[in-house]
Amino acid sequence: MKFAVLGGGSWATAIVKMLTENLDTVHWYMRNHSAIEHIQKEGNNPNYLSSVDLKIRSLFLTSNINEAISSADYLIFAIPSAFLDKELQNLSANLENKVIFSAIKGIVPETGLIVGEHFHEEYSVPFENIGVITGPCHAEEVALERLSYLTIACADEVKAQLLAEHLTSHYIRTKISDDIIGTEYAAMLKNIYAIAAGIAHGLGYGDNFQSVLMSNAIREMKRFIGRVHKMKRNINNSAYLGDLLVTGYSTFSRNRMFGNMIGKGYTVKSAQMEMNMVAEGYYATKSAHLLNQKHEKKSKTPIIDAVHQVLYEKKNAKKIFKKLTEKLD
Amino acid sequence: MKFAVLGGGSWATAIVKMLTENLDTVHWYMRNHSAIEHIQKEGNNPNYLSSVDLKIRSLFLTSNINEAISSADYLIFAIPSAFLDKELQNLSANLENKVIFSAIKGIVPETGLIVGEHFHEEYSVPFENIGVITGPCHAEEVALERLSYLTIACADEVKAQLLAEHLTSHYIRTKISDDIIGTEYAAMLKNIYAIAAGIAHGLGYGDNFQSVLMSNAIREMKRFIGRVHKMKRNINNSAYLGDLLVTGYSTFSRNRMFGNMIGKGYTVKSAQMEMNMVAEGYYATKSAHLLNQKHEKKSKTPIIDAVHQVLYEKKNAKKIFKKLTEKLD
Repeated sequence: MKFAVLGGGSWATAIVKMLTENLDTVHWYMRNHSAIEHIQKEGNNPNYLSSVDLKIRSLFLTSNINEAISSADYLIFAIPSAFLDKELQNLSANLENKVIFSAIKGIVPETGLIVGEHFHEEYSVPFENIGVITGPCHAEEVALERLSYLTIACADEVKAQLLAEHLTSHYIRTKISDDIIGTEYAAMLKNIYAIAAGIAHGLGYGDNFQSVLMSNAIREMKRFIGRVHKMKRNINNSAYLGDLLVTGYSTFSRNRMFGNMIGKGYTVKSAQMEMNMVAEGYYATKSAHLLNQKHEKKSKTPIIDAVHQVLYEKKNAKKIFKKLTEKLD
Repeated sequence: MKFAVLGGGSWATAIVKMLTENLDTVHWYMRNHSAIEHIQKEGNNPNYLSSVDLKIRSLFLTSNINEAISSADYLIFAIPSAFLDKELQNLSANLENKVIFSAIKGIVPETGLIVGEHFHEEYSVPFENIGVITGPCHAEEVALERLSYLTIACADEVKAQLLAEHLTSHYIRTKISDDIIGTEYAAMLKNIYAIAAGIAHGLGYGDNFQSVLMSNAIREMKRFIGRVHKMKRNINNSAYLGDLLVTGYSTFSRNRMFGNMIGKGYTVKSAQMEMNMVAEGYYATKSAHLLNQKHEKKSKTPIIDAVHQVLYEKKNAKKIFKKLTEKLD
């Protein structure tokens, strides 16, 4: 089995690091030529997790996405969801018989789908060849080799197990799951809740409120995911609650930072300009809200609704969050 | 209805503040004479939450516990659990017809009981007259009037409702519950998990692990409480999960601080000496462990077991936590 990682960011770099603990050959696609040259020469990614010494002998780097895809059986996508569709426009390689794992936390803006669904709908990849790699896991702690737990989900558990074994090392423990839809939605929704946590913090709410917000968020997430894909799952498992917490309590989360600026009075546009990027939860909010509207029987999602009102309906964050506090318990 | 608060610490002071938002008369017992004098003269508690301006016209302060108890119908105990039994030795006032709310998070070391059970067993107070005030709520944020949510639990919901209304204000929202055993155990267990979080942090584990630890802790708490008192409860409500999070993620929690010192290599004794106090989770660990041993069918409590081994069985924290990481997922 050959593995390819697609993406040049910090999470892609972390996954490459994990895989090369076990594999002698890892294909790695990124757009950025000069980063590839730097990695080949210096042994580290100049832009992300630059402290990580990469095992360059095991790396087959390319800036040609089709080359990477053709070389591998397992494709691990770690391209930000906002750029995925554009990158896939260049695709000429055949995805038939490829196993696709998404390490992307978000919604493809062009289709409003989570990544697994996007590959299924747009590229006819059968669900048994689609999987998800999910945290709770900051890439920065992988760089430091701090013990982290991953959940590898795939409808075909044999494939999940195979990838899990290749990711496991002295600092990575893995668990497999068959809930690809639930884990992927959890990974997406948590970014919305991280924005909410940031807004609340920016508005001056404290730790007491933050814990109430998270306690309501996990209940809301359970309702939401239950509506999208009903199956027996323990929402308090690491892939759902753990992932929510590691993001919601992180002061480094870009989604939380984005929310914090909104709470402090920045407009959405100016916060995005200031951050020089769009936080993934921004798109996720729109998609989650839309998806919920579509359902005949909507699930109660006061937190998502509040974030949507602030980000997309030009409502005043202070007023909206005051109203939100009355809906929480 | 007359209300008395018993205790002179920060949580007692916060409760007095909340009550005097609504009541013209609040009886307040504390041992410390000079603190009483200071409060009467300066309008603030010199030792705890000293920034809070207390409404002294509404306060009836006494250093005589029997006087406070005789004056009131509702008694709110906020004396640290380690000192409760000793304080109650001075009791001559009759507890008949008194409604007793515990705002104490811990186990009475002398009896190994949670506070509600202690009053029930040792003072024959019927369960319909026993209640619990629980967070998630740091007293320090009440002092700052930051929005906080309390759960008021009593088997007799009318009594819970009555107290809840007197605690509600522009910065306090309340919710009632009939799960006095569950909420009180949750308040106690969370201190053990905060010690575990502290130990892990002291040993160098990071945020990824912390979120996995909390995700496992809430599942362990659910199993533990379910064994002690089986009833339908949503463990993700604020009184359980919220309370766990506000403590487990707080760098100010004394339990977390205590654990942190142990993780950094202090002995239990030296950590206690350095902190000049005993963290409540220290006693809770012993009691929870003992209680679990008593059950014919023990619930799986790897985190409590690990903390117990470190605190009471002189085991090496690093080794024990290494083993613990293998049991979490």
